[in-house]
Amino acid sequence: MKIGIIGLGLIGGSIAKALRKSHEISAFDINKEALTFAIENNIIDKAYFDLEAFLNNNNLIYLCLYPESIVSFFKENSRLIKKDTIFIEISGIKTKLIQDIRKLNLNYIDIVYTHPIAGREVSGVFFADEKIFFNGNYAIINDQNTKTENLELAYSLAKEMGFKNISKINAKLHDQIIAYTSQLTHIISLSLVNSFSNSVDLSHFTGDSYRDLTRIANININLWADLFTNNKNALIDIIANFENELSKFKNALATNNLEELETLMEKAKNKHNKYLEGNKNES
Amino acid sequence: MKIGIIGLGLIGGSIAKALRKSHEISAFDINKEALTFAIENNIIDKAYFDLEAFLNNNNLIYLCLYPESIVSFFKENSRLIKKDTIFIEISGIKTKLIQDIRKLNLNYIDIVYTHPIAGREVSGVFFADEKIFFNGNYAIINDQNTKTENLELAYSLAKEMGFKNISKINAKLHDQIIAYTSQLTHIISLSLVNSFSNSVDLSHFTGDSYRDLTRIANININLWADLFTNNKNALIDIIANFENELSKFKNALATNNLEELETLMEKAKNKHNKYLEGNKNES
Repeated sequence: MKIGIIGLGLIGGSIAKALRKSHEISAFDINKEALTFAIENNIIDKAYFDLEAFLNNNNLIYLCLYPESIVSFFKENSRLIKKDTIFIEISGIKTKLIQDIRKLNLNYIDIVYTHPIAGREVSGVFFADEKIFFNGNYAIINDQNTKTENLELAYSLAKEMGFKNISKINAKLHDQIIAYTSQLTHIISLSLVNSFSNSVDLSHFTGDSYRDLTRIANININLWADLFTNNKNALIDIIANFENELSKFKNALATNNLEELETLMEKAKNKHNKYLEGNKNES
Repeated sequence: MKIGIIGLGLIGGSIAKALRKSHEISAFDINKEALTFAIENNIIDKAYFDLEAFLNNNNLIYLCLYPESIVSFFKENSRLIKKDTIFIEISGIKTKLIQDIRKLNLNYIDIVYTHPIAGREVSGVFFADEKIFFNGNYAIINDQNTKTENLELAYSLAKEMGFKNISKINAKLHDQIIAYTSQLTHIISLSLVNSFSNSVDLSHFTGDSYRDLTRIANININLWADLFTNNKNALIDIIANFENELSKFKNALATNNLEELETLMEKAKNKHNKYLEGNKNES
């Protein structure tokens, strides 16, 4: 197939690498350096520096933009897009995005909302690596307005990319889960880094637990500010749940309630071991 | 040297493996299975099933017990301990431990309070591995009652074990830092696991961030309940700091304050990059 990619960053570039084995990949990006790099490094077959020409030559397009940019992309370019073009969108939040796009009445195209749950602490096509998808998770939103055949197309392409678990799920539940597994974890990591102010050289006193919990504090600020604000309600709800669980530990400590402390630890340990079993059963 | 180890678990066993290249290692444990395993697997030179004989034959002893057990060990066995025996203690908290031990008036022995900042999500001598120390951090408490020559002895043995940064520090500051880098991180991980109650199979929707933040939720409950409660005041203080930083994020989201949100992210990212630089400069 001919597959186009708009937005050639870490994910767009990794998709290109993953799919180029069996498909012809072209790309458009406003960043000419990214396109030049991708051509020179054999990541894509063809670079378009003109959006109209790119859109005229592609019927299937991975749209790899930040949520806010997706809406403005469609607003600004809707008249350039051919009828029946299929877009596979890959951003990390869905409910608000789908609402915003619905308002644009783009009835002459089809959009598949998907989320490859993968990433790295670096950005840009320079770090593109198809291995970030291997054995990973991929969510496809079963939106009523997306054609079933295109849901299946996105599914089979995700399989080709090497994802292990590909789930169809509704937008609201997706956003609740991602608020927890991805957004809350980043906010925790950032808050953890911000909560110690002593000037001692921490690098002499940390072990794996601190290193693991703070790795993602090296964050792509623009991307994540966009993701956080576009999933604000689900995120605030899950932060509140987390605060509540944290305060249970604090209270058990403050009241010397060892039994409660151990009960809380036991609950978490059991839940986590079930999660690890879930991972194992599928590998 | 002849070196004894009391408490042959993950850390005691790893110390044995690390030091056995140049020293003769014997061990005592109330768990006979651990001793038998260590002999059969060539981890120690000699196993003692009798504490009195062990104490009579060792002048330098790594005491690898949980904090609560250290105090009761000295209470119950002080009459068996030879004059001038040197103990190197390796637990994760110090202020309360040193206070409790001081009350016992053990003036005929010397105790070096140290903390190898290393561990794994598993316990027991069966998982002993000296590699958990390589390039790691080690803290030695410069307690006024410990002889300088024994602080130096603990220092040079930590070097032999492969630790990279060996710091001398006072007990109070050690406990404040560890409350942050080690104990808070574990409580965060446990609280994170406890804060989602939907029955969906999470293993289909998680990426590296969730896996990193929850790895340590597979916790050794007895050990950590002991560590938490023995460092209760420092831990409650740092939980409160963390709650405060977390609420800044929540408030910035709730009030749509994008500027504040980005400022908080920027602050964390910069702090974390300084921490990473600190690590790099020493490797």
